[in-house]
Amino acid sequence: MKRFINVKNTIVTEALDGFLATTPTLGLARLDGYPHTKVIVRTDWNKSRVALISGGGSGHEPAHAGFVGEAMLTAAVCGDIFASPSVEAVLAAIRAVTGTAGCLLIVKNYTGDRLNFGLAAERAKALGYKVEMVIVADDIAIPDAHNPRGLAGTLFVHKIAGFLAAQGASLEVLAAAAQAAAAASYSIGLSLDSCTMPGTTKDDYLGPDEAELGLDIHGEPGVSKIAFEPADKLMALACARLSAALGGFAGRLAIILNNLGAVPPLEMGVLANAFMKTDLADQCALIIGPAHLMTSLNMTGFSVSALELDGVREQALLAPVGASGWPGVRQPGAITLVPLPETGRGEAYSPSQNAAVQSVIRAVCDMLIAAEDMLNHLDSRIGDGDTGTTFATAARCVLDALDSLPCNDGAALGAALGALLSRNMGGSSGVLMAILFTAAGKACKQGEDWPGALYEGAGQMMCYGGAREGDRTLLDALIPGLESLMQGKSVAEAATAARQGADATATMRQARAGRAAYVHEDNLAGVTDPGAEAIARAFEAIAAIR
Amino acid sequence: MKRFINVKNTIVTEALDGFLATTPTLGLARLDGYPHTKVIVRTDWNKSRVALISGGGSGHEPAHAGFVGEAMLTAAVCGDIFASPSVEAVLAAIRAVTGTAGCLLIVKNYTGDRLNFGLAAERAKALGYKVEMVIVADDIAIPDAHNPRGLAGTLFVHKIAGFLAAQGASLEVLAAAAQAAAAASYSIGLSLDSCTMPGTTKDDYLGPDEAELGLDIHGEPGVSKIAFEPADKLMALACARLSAALGGFAGRLAIILNNLGAVPPLEMGVLANAFMKTDLADQCALIIGPAHLMTSLNMTGFSVSALELDGVREQALLAPVGASGWPGVRQPGAITLVPLPETGRGEAYSPSQNAAVQSVIRAVCDMLIAAEDMLNHLDSRIGDGDTGTTFATAARCVLDALDSLPCNDGAALGAALGALLSRNMGGSSGVLMAILFTAAGKACKQGEDWPGALYEGAGQMMCYGGAREGDRTLLDALIPGLESLMQGKSVAEAATAARQGADATATMRQARAGRAAYVHEDNLAGVTDPGAEAIARAFEAIAAIR
Repeated sequence: MKRFINVKNTIVTEALDGFLATTPTLGLARLDGYPHTKVIVRTDWNKSRVALISGGGSGHEPAHAGFVGEAMLTAAVCGDIFASPSVEAVLAAIRAVTGTAGCLLIVKNYTGDRLNFGLAAERAKALGYKVEMVIVADDIAIPDAHNPRGLAGTLFVHKIAGFLAAQGASLEVLAAAAQAAAAASYSIGLSLDSCTMPGTTKDDYLGPDEAELGLDIHGEPGVSKIAFEPADKLMALACARLSAALGGFAGRLAIILNNLGAVPPLEMGVLANAFMKTDLADQCALIIGPAHLMTSLNMTGFSVSALELDGVREQALLAPVGASGWPGVRQPGAITLVPLPETGRGEAYSPSQNAAVQSVIRAVCDMLIAAEDMLNHLDSRIGDGDTGTTFATAARCVLDALDSLPCNDGAALGAALGALLSRNMGGSSGVLMAILFTAAGKACKQGEDWPGALYEGAGQMMCYGGAREGDRTLLDALIPGLESLMQGKSVAEAATAARQGADATATMRQARAGRAAYVHEDNLAGVTDPGAEAIARAFEAIAAIR
Repeated sequence: MKRFINVKNTIVTEALDGFLATTPTLGLARLDGYPHTKVIVRTDWNKSRVALISGGGSGHEPAHAGFVGEAMLTAAVCGDIFASPSVEAVLAAIRAVTGTAGCLLIVKNYTGDRLNFGLAAERAKALGYKVEMVIVADDIAIPDAHNPRGLAGTLFVHKIAGFLAAQGASLEVLAAAAQAAAAASYSIGLSLDSCTMPGTTKDDYLGPDEAELGLDIHGEPGVSKIAFEPADKLMALACARLSAALGGFAGRLAIILNNLGAVPPLEMGVLANAFMKTDLADQCALIIGPAHLMTSLNMTGFSVSALELDGVREQALLAPVGASGWPGVRQPGAITLVPLPETGRGEAYSPSQNAAVQSVIRAVCDMLIAAEDMLNHLDSRIGDGDTGTTFATAARCVLDALDSLPCNDGAALGAALGALLSRNMGGSSGVLMAILFTAAGKACKQGEDWPGALYEGAGQMMCYGGAREGDRTLLDALIPGLESLMQGKSVAEAATAARQGADATATMRQARAGRAAYVHEDNLAGVTDPGAEAIARAFEAIAAIR
């Protein structure tokens, strides 16, 4: 399976160095013990305070290095992917950061971590250090499990212990508070897919209709395969388990919504919305995430963690930290709705008559309806063959509305045609024509005559549409035609200019806008751009009015 | 393809509501226009300032709703996935937040967005609003492209314009600064896999040895397929393209490392490290990410964006914001190394002789070597069959080291045996025995006699290992044996107690620790736990010394 790695056995050291090099202002460093000792430490650490050390296998980023910093961890001991760090590495971390106040080890409940952190603690104690260890076992997947695993609830313990350590709490007080927070933490994971160790092939052990509940964060199978269901149901299922594990606790909760690795942010938003519909949300006073906190490589899954709150825990969770991986804590709440601004305000107009304008509109529309098949045919050679129908449909709408249009008020007519075409003429062409007439109406309002106003509209079409004269679009007929009129020439002369412009598109070897931009030049040769053809014919139709 | 969604056509509104419900303290709201109008607005907005509006299709989260907030966007107009929002939705956003100072639309260079934001701008202007539009076209995948796409460089424009708007800059100043920042932004994306629209099946159009350079953020094919290579090479390739696009610009750059959706944080760390090795890193004064900024659903890819810095841009990027999606800006730099704490300090010991202790050690070790096959056989029935070899190997090491051990100094002997076993006895057993002797040594130092010290050591084994008496482990022999000694009974009596404890494991129907925990009770029946058997034999061997 393709992954963004170099050599398998340096993934962790490279990722840690990448982390450190992009966060130098956080005051972090690493112990000079690569590759064996992968320990991130604070350089601004006051050893008169109790040091907090956590860690474990890697593959859980931002845990644990991302939680080292002011008011969170003092050091993180990182093992290889999903492998506990060695006793020596843990001991090095203890020695590097522990002063007279001692240190607290915060360990997730995995045998390797318990043993290696445990032996390191014993060796450190034998060397005279004050060391306590708190084991986090927040997984509730198996009711009454003998040895529940440690999951994202560990973050609650990091945060609360970090706050208390920064306040100067003693090791005894800190260890008791951390242990109590660990005991009050509950987590469950749910995944649509297993994670893949770098360098291995993907194991599709879940079927297309299966998901997994109660999963580990090390790629081990979850407690149970469940049916794949909509996000709301999967979230409800996970939260129902948490509610059951919480027993009778009806107080305020802090909730972590954790991305296990590869869930796109859009879907985490859907899951957050799903969470807000659960009973658990009623108890949720503080929310952390959705965010990547305790991942499992590229797992397409999430976990939900709950912590029973009390005053100190709430204060601790809300306190600011200097760790890069902590996304902050928010109080969830109702969504504020703002009334939709009135649409149509200021766009109302009264019908008015202007025989000359009406005859121009009628002439152009009649022509477009008559040219439908011909324009479609032209477009079929360089596009999707619907230019004729698009213009004819618009023309029919305009004719239908003609009696109600403000034909004697140029400004209002431009706006009205813009609105009409925006609603009734499909695709990009509809929006472009709407821009043309809307902008032209505004120019009329500012005193421009019709040729000048349409010329300004064409300018806005170019600005927003990105096409220019010479790009093989209707602009190649429209611009010369309008320029003729603005120079005071007759409509017949303008029609000639527009026709020359339209005909010239047949010799342009490259289109730079619209679908024709994707057509090979051999297929463009000799074909007039259908939009330019329509514009040339429009000028010709106006010139023919008598 | 399984995804965390409910119904396809409500993904975006659900995700936006999930976002709003979990961020109510940010002062955001949405216009009451679902499902058509999906507009997130600031409620704390001062209309005397220029409003900043961005948006586009969804599927790019946290863009754009995540960048609405103090000193960034005033409103985000969200379309359906990869689909431009409608003219009406953009116009509603403009009307909702624009005051006398006007508004600036920041639009990525896609036809749909240009046209819909463009027509909305024209309609708003016709209604009397002051509106300017800046188009971001930062993609450098195709040199000299006529219409480069808008990618994550758009974030630079949001941030800089947000800073200037908060400072009270006029619309003219703001539009010019935003346009200049857009022109000074360069981005390129690289992916290992295409993204998948929710509700569609996965399209494996890239082969296992292929990657894609110069990709779009809407699932369209990239500019070129390239060979899949190690992360360092892929990052170097992307950065070389950026360097080329930067032409001669040799000044300071801000860099965005953007996760396109599904790259696990561990790999983003590897990519950050890879980036720091490129020539571009030498110019990088500010770095944003690695983070999810402008994603493309679940794409396994990254993009790198560069912005030419000047004093104002640098100040603008560094300013704090109230938008949840902005990860902050850091100055990359050298990694600080802290020397590894001396290992072995305080653990040195001098050899010393004590005939009684040595004969005990020798008796136990000889027994373990002799019992190797028998213990392996027992273990093969309930585990992986290596208990005998694990203990025998440890015993040989201890015998080899016996003359150099501090046999006449209980505290030092415990520590020495702990260190020896930690290094030479594999697996969990090695660490557990090391904990036993290390903790016992410490207890000796504090005045405990050997039985009491070992009993304390056993307590630490239980604490860290998680097993208790009755869990069908060696503790079932060790604890009764040591308790006998502590009660002043003879070694022979202690051996009897240990033997009874060991034999009792054969009748225990469930193991709660070690590999035997995974064995069905029928297979456990009648089999003595090999660890308990070893301990019972150790007591018997000591009792037999004369």
